[in-house]
Amino acid sequence: MSDARSECGMTSKDLFSIHIDRPDPGNLKMSQEKWDSIAKPIDGLGTLEELISRIAAAQGNVCPDITRKAVIIMCADNGVFEEGVSQTEQKVTYDVACLMGARRSSVGRMAKGYPVDFYVYDIGINSEETPDGVIHAKIRRGTANFTKEPAMQLQECLDAVRTGIDAARQCKENGCGILATGEMGIGNTTTSTALLCALKGLDPKTCTGRGAGLTDSGLGRKIKAIREGLRIHRGEKAGTEITSKEEVLEALRCLGGLDIAGLTGVFIGGAVYGVPVVIDGFISAIAALIAEKLVPGCRDYMLASHMGREKGMELILEELSLKPVIHADLALGEGTGAILLFPMLDMAMSLYLEGTAFEETQIGRYERYGK
Amino acid sequence: MSDARSECGMTSKDLFSIHIDRPDPGNLKMSQEKWDSIAKPIDGLGTLEELISRIAAAQGNVCPDITRKAVIIMCADNGVFEEGVSQTEQKVTYDVACLMGARRSSVGRMAKGYPVDFYVYDIGINSEETPDGVIHAKIRRGTANFTKEPAMQLQECLDAVRTGIDAARQCKENGCGILATGEMGIGNTTTSTALLCALKGLDPKTCTGRGAGLTDSGLGRKIKAIREGLRIHRGEKAGTEITSKEEVLEALRCLGGLDIAGLTGVFIGGAVYGVPVVIDGFISAIAALIAEKLVPGCRDYMLASHMGREKGMELILEELSLKPVIHADLALGEGTGAILLFPMLDMAMSLYLEGTAFEETQIGRYERYGK
Repeated sequence: MSDARSECGMTSKDLFSIHIDRPDPGNLKMSQEKWDSIAKPIDGLGTLEELISRIAAAQGNVCPDITRKAVIIMCADNGVFEEGVSQTEQKVTYDVACLMGARRSSVGRMAKGYPVDFYVYDIGINSEETPDGVIHAKIRRGTANFTKEPAMQLQECLDAVRTGIDAARQCKENGCGILATGEMGIGNTTTSTALLCALKGLDPKTCTGRGAGLTDSGLGRKIKAIREGLRIHRGEKAGTEITSKEEVLEALRCLGGLDIAGLTGVFIGGAVYGVPVVIDGFISAIAALIAEKLVPGCRDYMLASHMGREKGMELILEELSLKPVIHADLALGEGTGAILLFPMLDMAMSLYLEGTAFEETQIGRYERYGK
Repeated sequence: MSDARSECGMTSKDLFSIHIDRPDPGNLKMSQEKWDSIAKPIDGLGTLEELISRIAAAQGNVCPDITRKAVIIMCADNGVFEEGVSQTEQKVTYDVACLMGARRSSVGRMAKGYPVDFYVYDIGINSEETPDGVIHAKIRRGTANFTKEPAMQLQECLDAVRTGIDAARQCKENGCGILATGEMGIGNTTTSTALLCALKGLDPKTCTGRGAGLTDSGLGRKIKAIREGLRIHRGEKAGTEITSKEEVLEALRCLGGLDIAGLTGVFIGGAVYGVPVVIDGFISAIAALIAEKLVPGCRDYMLASHMGREKGMELILEELSLKPVIHADLALGEGTGAILLFPMLDMAMSLYLEGTAFEETQIGRYERYGK
């Protein structure tokens, strides 16, 4: 498949100067009024009404179109794998990407019979070849081990972000009205937790989870690796919250994964091109938070899907003021949680666009209590 | 449409003697093993894995079939409406049932393009006619006002339960592998709350919600009506929990609605005929609880869909030990929350039935930590 890397490199300055238009509050209001005109109790579909209204605002259209959907999956390896932070081999990233390319991985099977476009990116798998059916966007063969050196060079990090922005743009050009995010990368709950700790000044002991299933000793190694990463890249600032864009980017470069940087770009791109982007689990959520911190305003184009099992998830979604509607203790990744939201949105959208209005019936409108 | 009422009346004794076979624990175990054989993290789909395994156990088949689905909607009026417990007219029950018959109500619109059979029952709308497209099973034109007299006669209540059991049987005969429940009946959060208070010995002040949107004064009237109903039908026992089947049936008869009694029957029928039944919101949930109390074992054939907005919902689902996966502050009724679960189950089932096994890949199995 085609090479998706941009030709001229994006600079930090380019990134920091991206401006996001706030969605038109008029569209949000008109959308809420449209909901209230439908013959049903006020706010009857609860959070789903809010989600549809936010999609309307993001697309800049009271009657938005989410018929065409895509899931963008970023696959990459992580050098910190060397520290024994995962129960599997590193090669599983490549193996699962091969399955993804053939639609045989979990997310592909789940979407069987459901119309969604798949864009699987090799943004940094530790392999010579990019698997069939996967987009070649390999920036390097996995990151460096962050307990020893920065995970990436600055330009590599920016290239990964740019790859994600371009991925969102391409989806928009292909007619997609909404995007889901997914990832595959052995060791990426470690990188995500390290980033969360860096951004929020947290102690890794309080927010490190078991990922795809770690033993107690594995969990100990994971916490130790994160602590070491924070020590060498954050130094004395390790316990303090990051506030500047520059420091956020530096944390992403030193502790992050190429998958996370790529997804950060997808969230930025969604906001730039007016396409709402659905957050999947913890890894996707940390990318969303980084996107908002690098390019404020992205949050208005994000939708939460589920409350993942990893400890840091709740904290991130709270900071983004996003409410996940699925609480199913999911911990699969690949975008599986994000695509579970799609058919719920379809059903809500059917009612929103074609619901019977009070005016077409003999039923009197409900009134908001307290008014 | 055809008259769905049974010809010879069911007795209390008939009802209490219904025996539910426990789902085969062997199927549950084999199903969990099947999940663990799929190339993904252990328990990756969390609660959705549990739901599919419980469906497998309920159907008595490790590879269950939920291709064909139905939603059974019970529509009825409630005499307690006279006490000013709703912000709308009583005629809205009939009007919405008309929309339901034409698939123009909220649940019908939401299911547009999604394959699900609709069975809408007029089990007691306060109207002469049954709307087109609605099954005539009218037991009486709405219940009596429970603040003055029992809502129903015993045989009417039993007939309503029997109607629900027959509805589930018919769906099973038509090839349905899973059922969703829905209802329409102005005043039915009042009857549901009254039943919850009676069953659990609760003070209505602690668990009465605003239904489809009540003002403060409306909420006051609703609490007063429920308190009066408890006083005249439960007397000195009003603050104590109900433990016997006889008292549960008596509470249903005196305080319940025909819609609730009908849905109680659907849950019992689902358990009898081995078809899992999805709980919708608060009204459906109280029917589920009553079904379990009248015919123990029904619970194993129930799935929770969402955590509704009404106050009593959490209490009921906890008592049934069921975990809802959707948290979206829904308060629409009609089965809208229940059908939102269907496509999520479809996606999980696709992975379950066709997921790539570890054995087909080069990926080593994940192991459960702590083992």
